[in-house]
Amino acid sequence: MAKFLVVHGAGMNMRGKTQIDVFGTITLADYDAQIRSYAAELGVAVDIFHSNIEGEVINKLYAAQESGVDGAVINPAGFMSGYPALAAAITQVTYPTIEVHISNPARRGAESAISAVVRGVIAGFGVYGYYLALRSLKEISGK
Amino acid sequence: MAKFLVVHGAGMNMRGKTQIDVFGTITLADYDAQIRSYAAELGVAVDIFHSNIEGEVINKLYAAQESGVDGAVINPAGFMSGYPALAAAITQVTYPTIEVHISNPARRGAESAISAVVRGVIAGFGVYGYYLALRSLKEISGK
Amino acid sequence: MAKFLVVHGAGMNMRGKTQIDVFGTITLADYDAQIRSYAAELGVAVDIFHSNIEGEVINKLYAAQESGVDGAVINPAGFMSGYPALAAAITQVTYPTIEVHISNPARRGAESAISAVVRGVIAGFGVYGYYLALRSLKEISGK
Amino acid sequence: MAKFLVVHGAGMNMRGKTQIDVFGTITLADYDAQIRSYAAELGVAVDIFHSNIEGEVINKLYAAQESGVDGAVINPAGFMSGYPALAAAITQVTYPTIEVHISNPARRGAESAISAVVRGVIAGFGVYGYYLALRSLKEISGK
Amino acid sequence: MAKFLVVHGAGMNMRGKTQIDVFGTITLADYDAQIRSYAAELGVAVDIFHSNIEGEVINKLYAAQESGVDGAVINPAGFMSGYPALAAAITQVTYPTIEVHISNPARRGAESAISAVVRGVIAGFGVYGYYLALRSLKEISGK
Amino acid sequence: MAKFLVVHGAGMNMRGKTQIDVFGTITLADYDAQIRSYAAELGVAVDIFHSNIEGEVINKLYAAQESGVDGAVINPAGFMSGYPALAAAITQVTYPTIEVHISNPARRGAESAISAVVRGVIAGFGVYGYYLALRSLKEISGK
Amino acid sequence: MAKFLVVHGAGMNMRGKTQIDVFGTITLADYDAQIRSYAAELGVAVDIFHSNIEGEVINKLYAAQESGVDGAVINPAGFMSGYPALAAAITQVTYPTIEVHISNPARRGAESAISAVVRGVIAGFGVYGYYLALRSLKEISGK
Amino acid sequence: MAKFLVVHGAGMNMRGKTQIDVFGTITLADYDAQIRSYAAELGVAVDIFHSNIEGEVINKLYAAQESGVDGAVINPAGFMSGYPALAAAITQVTYPTIEVHISNPARRGAESAISAVVRGVIAGFGVYGYYLALRSLKEISGK
Amino acid sequence: MAKFLVVHGAGMNMRGKTQIDVFGTITLADYDAQIRSYAAELGVAVDIFHSNIEGEVINKLYAAQESGVDGAVINPAGFMSGYPALAAAITQVTYPTIEVHISNPARRGAESAISAVVRGVIAGFGVYGYYLALRSLKEISGK
Amino acid sequence: MAKFLVVHGAGMNMRGKTQIDVFGTITLADYDAQIRSYAAELGVAVDIFHSNIEGEVINKLYAAQESGVDGAVINPAGFMSGYPALAAAITQVTYPTIEVHISNPARRGAESAISAVVRGVIAGFGVYGYYLALRSLKEISGK
Amino acid sequence: MAKFLVVHGAGMNMRGKTQIDVFGTITLADYDAQIRSYAAELGVAVDIFHSNIEGEVINKLYAAQESGVDGAVINPAGFMSGYPALAAAITQVTYPTIEVHISNPARRGAESAISAVVRGVIAGFGVYGYYLALRSLKEISGK
Amino acid sequence: MAKFLVVHGAGMNMRGKTQIDVFGTITLADYDAQIRSYAAELGVAVDIFHSNIEGEVINKLYAAQESGVDGAVINPAGFMSGYPALAAAITQVTYPTIEVHISNPARRGAESAISAVVRGVIAGFGVYGYYLALRSLKEISGK
Repeated sequence: MAKFLVVHGAGMNMRGKTQIDVFGTITLADYDAQIRSYAAELGVAVDIFHSNIEGEVINKLYAAQESGVDGAVINPAGFMSGYPALAAAITQVTYPTIEVHISNPARRGAESAISAVVRGVIAGFGVYGYYLALRSLKEISGK
Repeated sequence: MAKFLVVHGAGMNMRGKTQIDVFGTITLADYDAQIRSYAAELGVAVDIFHSNIEGEVINKLYAAQESGVDGAVINPAGFMSGYPALAAAITQVTYPTIEVHISNPARRGAESAISAVVRGVIAGFGVYGYYLALRSLKEISGK
Repeated sequence: MAKFLVVHGAGMNMRGKTQIDVFGTITLADYDAQIRSYAAELGVAVDIFHSNIEGEVINKLYAAQESGVDGAVINPAGFMSGYPALAAAITQVTYPTIEVHISNPARRGAESAISAVVRGVIAGFGVYGYYLALRSLKEISGK
Repeated sequence: MAKFLVVHGAGMNMRGKTQIDVFGTITLADYDAQIRSYAAELGVAVDIFHSNIEGEVINKLYAAQESGVDGAVINPAGFMSGYPALAAAITQVTYPTIEVHISNPARRGAESAISAVVRGVIAGFGVYGYYLALRSLKEISGK
Repeated sequence: MAKFLVVHGAGMNMRGKTQIDVFGTITLADYDAQIRSYAAELGVAVDIFHSNIEGEVINKLYAAQESGVDGAVINPAGFMSGYPALAAAITQVTYPTIEVHISNPARRGAESAISAVVRGVIAGFGVYGYYLALRSLKEISGK
Repeated sequence: MAKFLVVHGAGMNMRGKTQIDVFGTITLADYDAQIRSYAAELGVAVDIFHSNIEGEVINKLYAAQESGVDGAVINPAGFMSGYPALAAAITQVTYPTIEVHISNPARRGAESAISAVVRGVIAGFGVYGYYLALRSLKEISGK
Repeated sequence: MAKFLVVHGAGMNMRGKTQIDVFGTITLADYDAQIRSYAAELGVAVDIFHSNIEGEVINKLYAAQESGVDGAVINPAGFMSGYPALAAAITQVTYPTIEVHISNPARRGAESAISAVVRGVIAGFGVYGYYLALRSLKEISGK
Repeated sequence: MAKFLVVHGAGMNMRGKTQIDVFGTITLADYDAQIRSYAAELGVAVDIFHSNIEGEVINKLYAAQESGVDGAVINPAGFMSGYPALAAAITQVTYPTIEVHISNPARRGAESAISAVVRGVIAGFGVYGYYLALRSLKEISGK
Repeated sequence: MAKFLVVHGAGMNMRGKTQIDVFGTITLADYDAQIRSYAAELGVAVDIFHSNIEGEVINKLYAAQESGVDGAVINPAGFMSGYPALAAAITQVTYPTIEVHISNPARRGAESAISAVVRGVIAGFGVYGYYLALRSLKEISGK
Repeated sequence: MAKFLVVHGAGMNMRGKTQIDVFGTITLADYDAQIRSYAAELGVAVDIFHSNIEGEVINKLYAAQESGVDGAVINPAGFMSGYPALAAAITQVTYPTIEVHISNPARRGAESAISAVVRGVIAGFGVYGYYLALRSLKEISGK
Repeated sequence: MAKFLVVHGAGMNMRGKTQIDVFGTITLADYDAQIRSYAAELGVAVDIFHSNIEGEVINKLYAAQESGVDGAVINPAGFMSGYPALAAAITQVTYPTIEVHISNPARRGAESAISAVVRGVIAGFGVYGYYLALRSLKEISGK
Repeated sequence: MAKFLVVHGAGMNMRGKTQIDVFGTITLADYDAQIRSYAAELGVAVDIFHSNIEGEVINKLYAAQESGVDGAVINPAGFMSGYPALAAAITQVTYPTIEVHISNPARRGAESAISAVVRGVIAGFGVYGYYLALRSLKEISGK
């Protein structure tokens, strides 16, 4: 069974708690439940991780490299731009990485520095974007 | 049954004929066959269109608006940047639009001006990106 | 009787069909009827042309040069910037050209590359701007 | 009877006195006589004002706001760019404002910072531009 | 008793008269009454000045230098950027200067060129900012 | 009693230990003692926090959101620019935030990216700026 | 016998009809006659094409790729910059391409985006530049 | 006898009163006495003018144009950059204008926008620069 | 005996594990062994530290300031640019700091923001750069 | 018989000695032999000059102006950009100048500052470019 | 008797030989004769030097430093911008340096990098500028 | 015995003669004596060269390529940026090159264009940097 890492970047833990008019009432726990449900539907294992500390995300990516995963889904959130060490870490790992954004950053004039170092980008599909990312990773892994 | 427009931008008709070392031997006819196969698998109808003339693509998008479609998948290819009238046309139509790129433009330092006007972006998954796009459009259309 | 060309650029054919909250319900046909009414009031002849293909607009401008007109009113719309061949064509023709914008682009931070090559600019007066443009062209033509 | 303010910005008092090869021999007094003639033809009242001191122009615009006018025609001349307090004042007043330029600034690569804060722009029609501006203001005022 | 100059820049005289949806109905007279009330509470004297003419503000700052004040509170308003002679004048005077903004300019992407030449900045506290400024000036003056 | 969070950004722990010629001999402990003294004078409670790890500051801001505070005073120090996740976190929390700088950054040509996301800014008043910030927060909280 | 495509970009059809003071009275027909004369002298075949529609030029380049030519001479004229799809098409074709300019664009501060994708550039030699281009293509083709 | 206008821009009236460490104790009155002494030595008449209001300087330049002078020496001081109406006025007048700076602005990285519109520039010679300017104007006037 | 801190920035722990084609098979443990060998040869003590968390590196630098070291060798790696708090920390400490890069960043167009705050830079000598850095620190320390 | 100067800029003397993988084994002596062969074929005289010192190239161009030549072929090589005195010298001489580049600089993103001051440019044809340049100079000279 | 160096930069030797419509028929020999005449009138000695090789000008400036001069007049001409070693040399020498330009570079949009390193600038007075420069140097030298 | 070239760029011959407050009283002769002493200590031969003429430095680098050296130490000094022909020459030579700066240019905001073309950079160690450079070259040469 393919095993994928799912990373939530800075600020994802506040979803559903503040800025409800923008992001709605879905909390990070809700996101995670949905992602686990997608994983079950697709028959893949997921390891979900969140931190507001850039270096801890980097450490997690490296740990996954050492322990072995078949790919990673990364929603950089607050780490979308301005964190070159994180971008370098994504470049360094050898498993396929997919960047997911709940909304499409280009519509609000934002540009993700992470996009330049991942294999693929999926943006603008809400939580369903995690389904598309996991499905594409499964396709890539061939498992 | 949901009906989707699939648009190929400038230069897609040369795929598989030149730059084989970059894009492989898959021709536009091969792409279209694969897209129709995905459509059949998903139970949706597709209308596939290609032109190297920007205004003809604009006309096609407007015609789809008038005749009614449930969404559009757009691979801008050569029209990725530098064609504001096309970007404006995508802004004008009311059906959901998904931008697909065979490879991830951000990896080669390119930025798509189309991304700012579509609902969602899927980049870097090869021809399989069309499957993801059609599937997400079906999800959005609710049909 | 003075004879003027009126050119509608890319996207004008969708007016009144989409983005109704922005541009209202006036269609291109309505614009044209109003323009013909202004022309009748001013005692001038108008030849109205629309295309979403830049090169066809260029061809029309050149054809008017060859067949002879006393001036042209140009609403570039989607061709406002990013189309240097069209701007060059306006530079090349010898009859006076007036750029008209329904709304004032500078208010939304946009800049028209066409402004640098026309004789005069009229922006922000709605459809009434065509009246002002035709009237000024009549004044210029001296007919 | 509709009442309009006409403002001449910095340097207009030298027209016809220096740079005759550029602007001809028409003096500011000549402009004003022509503007009054247009006003008489259109059946509107005009209050014409000139100053080379930015703050005096601002004070005039505010005084018109307090005493009440139906609109203003503003030829910024030397105040075209680099005077944000004047631009802010035009934003603040509630009557419609039309910017007039004798020649078309875009043809010489200049950009007016005033354009972004007025309702409409008329450029490139010589003194006749004042006629077009007064006529459009009359149309807007509905008087 | 410490004596402070309070300067209102361009456009402050229109507060409460236009743009009521943005700035509310408080007029400059209301601001001044509140500032005098704060001064009374703090036991300091205030000399309040307003002009829409940059050079008159500069003259006032120089006159205060000659006649002697213990500090100045400056709300540049319309003179916030684009007026280097005013900024130079603030640099020249030797009494402490505090810049006050009713709202926080950085929130709307604006940058004050005055900030680089004053001793302190207080922004975003409404009319209460004048209280904070006067209080801090009293602290600085040691009177 | 109103309760406020006070945050010291990166490098504040070295105050009074290095760069004494620039910042003097006041240590972070001295700052904190002064802040507690101001709080006592104003009758408000303060929770003072310092970290050199951006993510820990973010976590603290979120924790305050969850446990409830009436406002926060933030001296970003080394986190003044280049830390978008921190800026995003300040945007996310719903309690009022005031940015304090000991010296005025604009005087040395620096710009704080934090200013664009806080409610108010107080810069250039030394440690007394904390007094002004707490006082204004008390005013805002209405407690 | 070597066979070469000769492409004239936007606006070439107005040569000799407008801007006579700049480009002289030589018409496109005159250019073509001269080019055919050069071809005869060199013993090569030429297929001359002109369009003001970018996409038609792209289609012509692709058609030549499919039918087979030994090289192409391209005078982009109005398509010199701002047409990335055309530049991409020139990159895609495998036959050698030579860019010709009647006058030297660098002398008037212009830069051709086409130069970056052709094999060679010849600029500033008037119609004689076509001779040099055809001669060099013949040399390259080895026929 | 040749007659020259000497203009002091914004802030010159504070020389010798503040920033003594930078500019020394020489006041504007001292400058003027020295300038009159130079004029007497050279046998020319001088009309010296100072204002901190840009528009008053513009008015003075225009009045000199109307009443007739043989040239002007302009030390823009605070009006060195950011005052396009003043620069335009210098362009408009027909008598020769010489810009004088007490110190050399380029040494501190500053650029004068006035330099582009005057006939000559003299910078870095202290008050002696006025002597050089008057002498060169006398040479130019031929009187 | 002189005591030096050696800091490895973000990503150094992956050397020899990924990107082997770029950096070879030398692991961080190998680097450290070599550095200890150089230290023994030079007769100096080294304290080697690595973290992927910027704030932990800052804390380490400050701790060394408090406990006392004779200098530091810093290979910023992933922290080379985009981490102003780290750069500020290096500015704050009073012991000499030497930046070392295994390869020369300028050759690949990269610029280190750390270079502006260290005493010396050594780039492009592989692991031998640590020898040069330690030797120069020993020279500087005079021990 | 027409007489032409041929100038080789900085670094041409190393051709065929280093960077053989880029430029091949052709030495400057080989280039010169080929150029002389072309000259013989065309019946023109050539004076070939090389220097790595910019000022010596300038002196050569001026000497040719004084002694008289019918034109010059200039391969700037290392002097392609960053040498304004050389560019000025080419502007000053009155004989026609043709810039030749062995490869096409635009393909590698380089721009020649020399192009803006020569009559014509020939780039991308290898050593054969000298033939084209001499032939075009002969055509221009009319000898 | 004061002794001054006069330096002519690149291209001055072509004055009066080419570009006669721009610079007139005055040759460098004529300039030098006029300068010697000015020197005689002022009772100062001049050493005039010209070279088109930047390094020779640098060597001359250094030699003057070693042998002793009371100042230098430098007309950089072709070395006006783009020659940092020359600018550094002017910074290094301790005698006063005056930059002279025959015409005023700012009028044609040019900026001299030399201005930032000289004591004074005199531009726009033709050959008479050398008189002004020598006179001011005499004043500075006090001899 | 390894043989290394040591190159001093423009202005090094003035060290110890001017700007003594910046660079101290060490002359170029002193530098050279120290370098020869380091060479003796390391058992390597050095050939030291200085010129203020860029092309002579280029010629020296090429001559060393032809005669054979084991590496070069280059202190570009005044040639640090703005001399692309020199940078190209360093790229062309095949022996290893090390750039040395007495002080660290990044500390004063300067960037060396030479850094991008050398193998290694050593900056900020005073004359001791030459020791480090020679030692590393010896290590690289393996002799």
